[in-house]
Amino acid sequence: MSVFDSLIHRLGADEVIAPGPAMQPYLREQRGLFADRSVVAVLRPVDTAGAARAVAACAELGLTVVPQGGNTGLCGGAAGRGEADTVVLSLERLNRIRDIQADDFSITVEAGCTLAAVQAAAASVDRLFPLSYAAEAECQIGGNLATNAGGMNVLRYGNARDLTLGLEVVLADGRVWDGLRSLRKDNSGYDLRDLFIGAEGTLGLITAATLKLFPPVRERATAIVGLATAEAAVALFGHLRTESGDTVTSCELMGRRPLEYTLRYATDCHDPLPAPHPWYLLVELTSSAADAQLPRRLEAALAASHGAGSDYRIARGPDEAADFWRLRNSIPGAQKGAGASIKNDISVPTVAMPAFLTEASTAVEAACPGVRVCAFGHLGDGNVHFNLTRPEAMNDEDFLPQWGALTRVVNDRVAAYRGSFAAEHGVGQLKPDEVGRLKDPVEQDLMRALKQALDPDNRLNPGKLVPPGGG
Amino acid sequence: MSVFDSLIHRLGADEVIAPGPAMQPYLREQRGLFADRSVVAVLRPVDTAGAARAVAACAELGLTVVPQGGNTGLCGGAAGRGEADTVVLSLERLNRIRDIQADDFSITVEAGCTLAAVQAAAASVDRLFPLSYAAEAECQIGGNLATNAGGMNVLRYGNARDLTLGLEVVLADGRVWDGLRSLRKDNSGYDLRDLFIGAEGTLGLITAATLKLFPPVRERATAIVGLATAEAAVALFGHLRTESGDTVTSCELMGRRPLEYTLRYATDCHDPLPAPHPWYLLVELTSSAADAQLPRRLEAALAASHGAGSDYRIARGPDEAADFWRLRNSIPGAQKGAGASIKNDISVPTVAMPAFLTEASTAVEAACPGVRVCAFGHLGDGNVHFNLTRPEAMNDEDFLPQWGALTRVVNDRVAAYRGSFAAEHGVGQLKPDEVGRLKDPVEQDLMRALKQALDPDNRLNPGKLVPPGGG
Repeated sequence: MSVFDSLIHRLGADEVIAPGPAMQPYLREQRGLFADRSVVAVLRPVDTAGAARAVAACAELGLTVVPQGGNTGLCGGAAGRGEADTVVLSLERLNRIRDIQADDFSITVEAGCTLAAVQAAAASVDRLFPLSYAAEAECQIGGNLATNAGGMNVLRYGNARDLTLGLEVVLADGRVWDGLRSLRKDNSGYDLRDLFIGAEGTLGLITAATLKLFPPVRERATAIVGLATAEAAVALFGHLRTESGDTVTSCELMGRRPLEYTLRYATDCHDPLPAPHPWYLLVELTSSAADAQLPRRLEAALAASHGAGSDYRIARGPDEAADFWRLRNSIPGAQKGAGASIKNDISVPTVAMPAFLTEASTAVEAACPGVRVCAFGHLGDGNVHFNLTRPEAMNDEDFLPQWGALTRVVNDRVAAYRGSFAAEHGVGQLKPDEVGRLKDPVEQDLMRALKQALDPDNRLNPGKLVPPGGG
Repeated sequence: MSVFDSLIHRLGADEVIAPGPAMQPYLREQRGLFADRSVVAVLRPVDTAGAARAVAACAELGLTVVPQGGNTGLCGGAAGRGEADTVVLSLERLNRIRDIQADDFSITVEAGCTLAAVQAAAASVDRLFPLSYAAEAECQIGGNLATNAGGMNVLRYGNARDLTLGLEVVLADGRVWDGLRSLRKDNSGYDLRDLFIGAEGTLGLITAATLKLFPPVRERATAIVGLATAEAAVALFGHLRTESGDTVTSCELMGRRPLEYTLRYATDCHDPLPAPHPWYLLVELTSSAADAQLPRRLEAALAASHGAGSDYRIARGPDEAADFWRLRNSIPGAQKGAGASIKNDISVPTVAMPAFLTEASTAVEAACPGVRVCAFGHLGDGNVHFNLTRPEAMNDEDFLPQWGALTRVVNDRVAAYRGSFAAEHGVGQLKPDEVGRLKDPVEQDLMRALKQALDPDNRLNPGKLVPPGGG
């Protein structure tokens, strides 16, 4: 019996997709960087027991398993690597909301629920699930957890990791660890939960999770502030966080260049302040109290900022707030208008951001004269997208081959500030070489020891996250 | 050369304490349950390199290492178990504040800093380190992290785990993992940090940590509310969390019995409301905004609670707030006046707490007629100290031998609600049997696999946390 027939025999025809047109959506990934035509089958279990059967079958048949959620990742973590004997295991049909408890501030969902579905379920009981980012309509919660997704609300609510109370996981041998708990305090054993979160499916397959909910947002205040320096932005962030009673939900930094890209290449974007500034902060406060008077508080806090952000505008209502957010959210699309970009998803300590921005800009300009730094992102998280637009006089084809070299220039500056070269998008198959190049050898050894302990046959998503080689 | 002489030779006389009077403080533990007279030496390194040398020396000499911080734990995690060839490794002299960055909202401290010293350092730059509990003057941050300490502010700020950004750890072979990072977003590898936190020193010795800081508390509102049922307390908690803009920092539940213990056996405690109630909630809101008007908000939220908590009193100032807190904080001492107690540090989902309290009370009364349930604690965390005072007509000597049996009765009810039999005090050498009895065998296997991967010779704090036997 062929491997494919064995899978059909064990799992049923409904749960196995053969190579052919039906398989294409599972192989195609949005940027087209990681297409894999060598996949033997796509497995589509409908529940946890089915996922466990599928992994056990793969273990017996000597197949490698690539777990896949919404397939929206940017680093190829959910794509095969062109190796033989690989199956893609899609969690998309595990898509039930298992339980929701408003007074417990918790929800239990299966891995294949889209992030938007989880947000909607929370809203239906007057609660907030705060994880939010551009792909939320398609990305799935299992993938959010496997990559420890970040996004727009991390400053206030944390990453996907911080929003998780319990997990259900299929292990490499097909056994199921039932760690679905909604406890706020539990010191009865090792923290297995956080080992699987962010492990990109290399240690186990997350099939369900119990997540934290929060009171709903009832009031909101949004401002855009012009600033002379990044140092002033960092100081203003600390000031606003304190004066607002720690209600800052977003604190987004934008350089003047990305703002100009939106004015030129995006629709319905307008310069928000009368005069231009080198830097802008988009700040939003939120509260579940209906009478929190946030616009008044934001006004008072900005007025008391000792001139750090003396040119600012507070949105007079939801429409103007949407105008401000459109500037921020249009940047990724607008930068395409200016030519090809080399993207760096990095983090450094928030206080180190100004020095990093200066030094990294100098370094990339030395390596590629005329390159245009387009820096924007989550200042409150120390996470800036330090993107590099090709020089005006260079064409895309000459610029993009410098991706590896320029990225290493940036990552060397990141490392000097004890930062991360993979802040919120993960490692996948895009950055394992940087893990090997930049991470402490002791940490690499620990990662390999954990991989060996939980997946001794290297069957779960091999070649992702963990650098090869050893001790 | 004797083992002791070998230690002196490798580490220097200043860092090695021989058996004798000087060693006693490291062997004595506050309840006297876990004294160990068999310890070969106490090692007292002064820095991380010294701690690494000490662990490496123990590995070469075949010695077992029991790490020790402030020695305030309640489960014997920092005490030897009477086995030969054991050293206690005290981190107390690693007590420097290495760095503090107000605008980064972070601090880097060595393991031997007392919790109070970390709080004070944060306050010195107008920041809050929110971890807080009764032993804070003596307990050390390394022990707080090894046990993932909880305490009074978990509801708002999380456990010790949630307050940690980075760690420095000495591994079982004496190598040092430098994971001291202050990043809010880092997805460049497995989450090693959370594996060591709460592992009770069985996987590595934490020597330093980078911790989160928060804006300082500038305003506070405190109320005590009388309630007819525990269900009403859960509903009121959800209501207050939402209406207050998620500023509830403490939500402590007290039954009428523990309150009466304080009125009878503690000093300066007074009945807070005109009429008695079966249950009380002590609620505190805090904010870093100076004009947050918290007492007015708390009053409005209580008034809008639809009668759930219609009998309440809001503290008119710090003195009355202190009166309310004295009631809560006097319970552990006051219960001694009523006779011996069997203590259970358990958690269940917050919504399950009322049913758990009813069923567990019925079960223990059936097992020991006349036993007096004394339940109090952190309702907002689902963590109640479900303590059992001896029956009035029984003496302590007849009651205390029932510790194991009554604890198992309670823990069986905890397990029925997917709760934890070790919520915030850890497992140590007090509860490994319950780990073996109540935890999913798959989870036990995973714990043993991780222990084997990181400490293959079982040299770090053996017999703690991880149950023996195996899969």
